[in-house]
Amino acid sequence: MKSVGVAILGLGVVGGGTYKILRDHREFYRQTQGVDISVECVLEINKEKALALGIEESKISDNIAEVVSNPNVDIVVEVIGGVEPAKSFVLAALHSGKSVVTSNKELFCKYWHELEKAARRTNAGLYFEASCVGGVPIIRTLIDGMQANVVENLTGIINGTTNYILTRMTRAGLGYEEALKEAQALGYAEANPSADVDGYDAAYKLSILSSLAFHTKVPLDKVYREGIRAVKAQDIAYGDGLGYVLKLLAIGKNTPQGIEVRVHPAFIRKDHPLASVSDSFNAVFLKGDSVGDIMLYGRGAGDLPTGSAIVSDVIYAATHGDVKYATFKNGAQAEPGVKFITDFRSRYYIRFTAKDKAGVLAKVAGIFGKYNISIVDLLQKGEGGGDDIPVILVTHETNEYSVRRALAKIGELDDVVSVDSVIRVEG
Amino acid sequence: MKSVGVAILGLGVVGGGTYKILRDHREFYRQTQGVDISVECVLEINKEKALALGIEESKISDNIAEVVSNPNVDIVVEVIGGVEPAKSFVLAALHSGKSVVTSNKELFCKYWHELEKAARRTNAGLYFEASCVGGVPIIRTLIDGMQANVVENLTGIINGTTNYILTRMTRAGLGYEEALKEAQALGYAEANPSADVDGYDAAYKLSILSSLAFHTKVPLDKVYREGIRAVKAQDIAYGDGLGYVLKLLAIGKNTPQGIEVRVHPAFIRKDHPLASVSDSFNAVFLKGDSVGDIMLYGRGAGDLPTGSAIVSDVIYAATHGDVKYATFKNGAQAEPGVKFITDFRSRYYIRFTAKDKAGVLAKVAGIFGKYNISIVDLLQKGEGGGDDIPVILVTHETNEYSVRRALAKIGELDDVVSVDSVIRVEG
Repeated sequence: MKSVGVAILGLGVVGGGTYKILRDHREFYRQTQGVDISVECVLEINKEKALALGIEESKISDNIAEVVSNPNVDIVVEVIGGVEPAKSFVLAALHSGKSVVTSNKELFCKYWHELEKAARRTNAGLYFEASCVGGVPIIRTLIDGMQANVVENLTGIINGTTNYILTRMTRAGLGYEEALKEAQALGYAEANPSADVDGYDAAYKLSILSSLAFHTKVPLDKVYREGIRAVKAQDIAYGDGLGYVLKLLAIGKNTPQGIEVRVHPAFIRKDHPLASVSDSFNAVFLKGDSVGDIMLYGRGAGDLPTGSAIVSDVIYAATHGDVKYATFKNGAQAEPGVKFITDFRSRYYIRFTAKDKAGVLAKVAGIFGKYNISIVDLLQKGEGGGDDIPVILVTHETNEYSVRRALAKIGELDDVVSVDSVIRVEG
Repeated sequence: MKSVGVAILGLGVVGGGTYKILRDHREFYRQTQGVDISVECVLEINKEKALALGIEESKISDNIAEVVSNPNVDIVVEVIGGVEPAKSFVLAALHSGKSVVTSNKELFCKYWHELEKAARRTNAGLYFEASCVGGVPIIRTLIDGMQANVVENLTGIINGTTNYILTRMTRAGLGYEEALKEAQALGYAEANPSADVDGYDAAYKLSILSSLAFHTKVPLDKVYREGIRAVKAQDIAYGDGLGYVLKLLAIGKNTPQGIEVRVHPAFIRKDHPLASVSDSFNAVFLKGDSVGDIMLYGRGAGDLPTGSAIVSDVIYAATHGDVKYATFKNGAQAEPGVKFITDFRSRYYIRFTAKDKAGVLAKVAGIFGKYNISIVDLLQKGEGGGDDIPVILVTHETNEYSVRRALAKIGELDDVVSVDSVIRVEG
């Protein structure tokens, strides 16, 4: 039977989960995969953490050079996260001809090309299923399941923390701060929640997923990004009345006019398959030219779900002889000739506060008309008494920049107190 | 660039779709997969059909020996369906060392072992993604995405025809016959609908999927099967009131007590991810010991969705050097020592007609009590006037055989006119 030795760099949540899965399933993989996978080494400064997992002292190292020169190690699992020292460690492993399995979306999205070049040089494998959407095999599906299709659309709920917060705001009517605190108490959100709530995490993943889906490098700086800090419970409630659910969506579209990639809160219809993806669950909805709509759903984070993706890659590396790299011709940059659309098209939910006076709506409608924006739904509460009242409207599909220009004009109207919320309506 | 020649056996719905995808995407696959895939030959008696698709006359054959001896053919796509002549053709291709890609669930579920033995002999590949759930990459996911997990549960809506019929019965209140006729008019159901509505198609797929998921051969004759012909619109309506949706489920469970595989109509809670899988859509819900719950959703049939799965396998065969076979040790039979559970556990929705008289329910409850079956919900309409009234009840989880025995006794009661419906409640 083939034997494969693994080194795990970092015993955090995912590293610990990966170790446990490999330890507890060794005999299962011998039987079902015909391969004997052993953890030969862990890189971890906190020795106690490793000992608590039952790892022999002789297999614990704090020196990357020692790890990558270990002849018993064939595959290096990097689960440290962040750019450095993870990047140097991964490059050291690849230089030594070890295959690398990583869950590091930030590293991968920013330095994919450099890592892949290093891997090609020694013919090492480079696997990153765990970098996107945890235990959901979305990378494998894009590479080996959807490859017959031109992928036209990829829309996902790919950050569990924000999905948990928005689910709590929706179901319990909590405010953002309250829901965030709850998520932090449950360990779903970090003390500094920025990576999640500002949409960075989702943007990293969208950059990776859309690069694979569209067969061209989609650099991070092309991803429009807007987080959930400004989401208000009252807009979720108004949206509910209109038949919508609010989600932080990651949207990638491949159109004849160009590629569009964006992460932002959006309303979707309640009967859309993504609408029922709640709590910390994730899902990715794909549209291929032959297969039509498909969706993958599951846990996007956690020690065992993400560990499952890591170990899936380890087994793949151990049992498939061949190595497949991405085929981007132009490295880290967007390929020449590939256009990215920033003035994307969407429908818009807009809430503003106006004086309850005759003629205000006519002025607003006039400005929208000037920018060719037509209105589907209008909700206004007031009795003409001159008080401040909320006005809610939903537009037909229109251009982002037209909406921004129109709203700037509307904000200047004397009888408009404030433009409070602008939420795109998708799906 | 690597060149790969394909032969397509049969230009029916899926064969035609496969041809169109390969024809229209040839340059796309050259660019994105680095392989030039050409259709070198089609086996089709109806020459006109082939010519109408734009296939050159020189590439149309009605002789399998000619096809499998064609040196330009590397991969043979079998989309004829049924056992013969498909089986002989597939074996002929494998004997000639051609890799085979098939959508044939019946052939594969019944003769997997024989086909695999033939493939091993010539080191040919054998791919069957299209045999289960059309365009949804469930086979690839089980082999290369979930392989780190012990799969505990696989529950699917894996027949689009019955899902369409049940959706129409649910949403429009149609009777079974009416909904079937509609499905036939739309081309979703065959003139002889038995394979779909009697659950054979779902049972074939469940045999294949659970064999892969549980790493042991699950023969077709171990699959309990019950179709949808007896489903009544009124039970769907009563279930709706209780918070359930009716689906034809394929359920595979791998427990310490044994394997349980069954296809039958079942109620599931409206908030279960499978409940919103409607019309001709399919979905498979999997529970792995590490990853937890995941679900794959998409079109289970149709020329292009199933063609997408076929072409996905063709590209996989063309671009991956290695061949991976299943690892069942005991061929076509269940492996010794593997137990199959027939007295499975479920909750039950039961409707019977009783005389509207005092004491009937006490007798019924007494019988259930005797068989240790406890009741969660009870619905009875009547005023004690002695008329025939419907009684509906839902049980706690109990054993299949206990329910059957209790119902036999209940059916013998003088005041029970008929036991009308027994529907399992899952999820």
